[in-house]
Amino acid sequence: MAEITAEKIWDLWTAIQEKRPLVHCITNIVTVNDCANILLAAGASPTMAHHPLEAAEVTEGCSSLVCNLGATESFEAMVAAGKRAFELNHAVVVDPVGAAGSSFRRKLCFELLHQITPSCIRGNLSEIKALATDSSTASGVDAAKEDMLCGGALEETAELVRRFAEERRTIIAASGETDLVSDGKNVYAVHNGSSMMAKITGSGCMESVLLGAFLSVENTLESAAASCGVMGICGELARHRTREVRGGTGTYRIQLIDAVSLLRKAQVKELQRVEKIF
Amino acid sequence: MAEITAEKIWDLWTAIQEKRPLVHCITNIVTVNDCANILLAAGASPTMAHHPLEAAEVTEGCSSLVCNLGATESFEAMVAAGKRAFELNHAVVVDPVGAAGSSFRRKLCFELLHQITPSCIRGNLSEIKALATDSSTASGVDAAKEDMLCGGALEETAELVRRFAEERRTIIAASGETDLVSDGKNVYAVHNGSSMMAKITGSGCMESVLLGAFLSVENTLESAAASCGVMGICGELARHRTREVRGGTGTYRIQLIDAVSLLRKAQVKELQRVEKIF
Amino acid sequence: MAEITAEKIWDLWTAIQEKRPLVHCITNIVTVNDCANILLAAGASPTMAHHPLEAAEVTEGCSSLVCNLGATESFEAMVAAGKRAFELNHAVVVDPVGAAGSSFRRKLCFELLHQITPSCIRGNLSEIKALATDSSTASGVDAAKEDMLCGGALEETAELVRRFAEERRTIIAASGETDLVSDGKNVYAVHNGSSMMAKITGSGCMESVLLGAFLSVENTLESAAASCGVMGICGELARHRTREVRGGTGTYRIQLIDAVSLLRKAQVKELQRVEKIF
Repeated sequence: MAEITAEKIWDLWTAIQEKRPLVHCITNIVTVNDCANILLAAGASPTMAHHPLEAAEVTEGCSSLVCNLGATESFEAMVAAGKRAFELNHAVVVDPVGAAGSSFRRKLCFELLHQITPSCIRGNLSEIKALATDSSTASGVDAAKEDMLCGGALEETAELVRRFAEERRTIIAASGETDLVSDGKNVYAVHNGSSMMAKITGSGCMESVLLGAFLSVENTLESAAASCGVMGICGELARHRTREVRGGTGTYRIQLIDAVSLLRKAQVKELQRVEKIF
Repeated sequence: MAEITAEKIWDLWTAIQEKRPLVHCITNIVTVNDCANILLAAGASPTMAHHPLEAAEVTEGCSSLVCNLGATESFEAMVAAGKRAFELNHAVVVDPVGAAGSSFRRKLCFELLHQITPSCIRGNLSEIKALATDSSTASGVDAAKEDMLCGGALEETAELVRRFAEERRTIIAASGETDLVSDGKNVYAVHNGSSMMAKITGSGCMESVLLGAFLSVENTLESAAASCGVMGICGELARHRTREVRGGTGTYRIQLIDAVSLLRKAQVKELQRVEKIF
Repeated sequence: MAEITAEKIWDLWTAIQEKRPLVHCITNIVTVNDCANILLAAGASPTMAHHPLEAAEVTEGCSSLVCNLGATESFEAMVAAGKRAFELNHAVVVDPVGAAGSSFRRKLCFELLHQITPSCIRGNLSEIKALATDSSTASGVDAAKEDMLCGGALEETAELVRRFAEERRTIIAASGETDLVSDGKNVYAVHNGSSMMAKITGSGCMESVLLGAFLSVENTLESAAASCGVMGICGELARHRTREVRGGTGTYRIQLIDAVSLLRKAQVKELQRVEKIF
């Protein structure tokens, strides 16, 4: 496997614009609008059908599926859509939002993973740790402070993510100051991103649906890492622009969608810091 | 019936500001916030009550009702509110979102149309065609490419829309590059709008609730066409302003609401292209 | 009890930034995203868990709870979370949104108040009056025109709010042109705010979750009044900035979140008009 280059990231990005993949999102009420808008900004197309009686049929017309555990009320639809997506060989992303602070959500997540086979599980590091150890690691939906990764612990954490990916036979994407993405063998560290992303709701949920778009054009570890890279790059571009206009977090949220819809190859080349660490 | 003039459109617009109609929206989780905000921007007032035990009572205090089939979980509330609205002679708009790609949603829509009598059905052309033929015409919630109307097929499509309006004894508004609006006799073509509207979620849903506001002040074909004209004009104004600030789709979404809240008569005069084609 | 000073307001504000309280919101689909974003903008952290089987556990990890009656479908979760929050001595805010125009929602609200003990009930004046008299006072979710308070009726209305607070043994915050906040003994009048706040959806809901943050650092009448003051100040700052850029209501909504995330002590000092009236 080659290192990810800006060329490769841009090829995947262009493939999304060309294919215009329809991404079926079963996701929570808090950020569902942002999820739809980021997919459109990326050149993909969202559909949000969560009725158990239509979830499987809707998935048939789509290219990938994203199940966000924040939609606790739509568990049945996730199972129906997930099973059909598997039969059709669609990429499936599971986002265990809130798993760090709710045993009910962990139970729901394990039950979902028992019934469907995701291509990728994406959460913040506290959520990934909570699943790996089946125990609470944080309250609420944000990562615990100690899980906001810095230099020293990076290798150790990367190995934890790799082992969990190996155990689950799927790609794991653990978001944080540095995102760690592994398929159980290799691990990518994505150094892109901005602390502003944690100051708006939905950064994680949007990252998950963007993964749905990337994996629908190429269902590989490289593609998952590229997706996290693009999200991080756009997070940086949005911070830059928000500072320019002296905006706050409201402006930042808008600039993040703008950055996705206006992304240029030169920006990817200049900013990408997606590194294969083992 | 006279051609629609900018004067007529502005009179209806002013009537909305004066009456401040309360529009009862039973609508989907994806775009419900945008729907509320566009109604407020237009000088109307939204209320979003979807509990089956309060839907009818809430409708009593309102001027019109909008049922968006994206809210599959609120079907019972739509029936209860729709029946009460009919008794009270309120305008009722039905938006069959997703009907193009889900047989379940078409079934739900036909069942709703069996139980309630809308003043207007508004969807994109793929959705309208799917209802007219009871078959899938597209995946997801966006119009199929071939349904993005251009010159040649316009008359043929207008006739399809007219016949469906005649059959259903209601106004049909089919959105696309050109919107087609018919009451079964006459057809208006609305040439306003921008391709940017398809790059954000909610343009269609917002058009439906705006129709709820227009039809509450005058429940006619002319009023429906005027509503589509205003939405399209605001879509153009928002594109213009977004380009000025070199914004992306996030900015466009904000500018669209801004354009509605800041609409001036001179803009309607300059931009409106609402044409009676037969 | 001392008058509220800008120093006091700022101390509470700083305490939120330092404690970063996790606020559990069980709230409606219309404005849930705005509620999450304003809490993040204020330095607090939101979590929105509404499944009855996890509501109590999630509340355990939080500092306060906000129950918004717009989430009619989540009544069971409100009761479960509210009981646990009471045991843990957490601040609980109830927002009776829509109580003015729906007897069902008033019934739901009374049932909730029978089962849980809030620290504060916050609604617009029409909603508070509807609860105080158990009768309809307005349609929809906005305050009736006559309840948009002006000079003359202020003392009379303040006494109504005080009596209702005394009766319910809780803090009542009634929003309007002037907010009135009482614990049954004293009453604060908050003269901050902007009429633009009524031109976007969610101002009231956001005020309720902000109260959740303030009361989690100090559960007092003073803290509730300070919260209303901060919300009003940010409403004014957002109007000012929106005018500067000639924006409409879409821009205003973004500027409101920006104002919260960028609030400075000097702005509180200059603008605060929180007055103890008896």
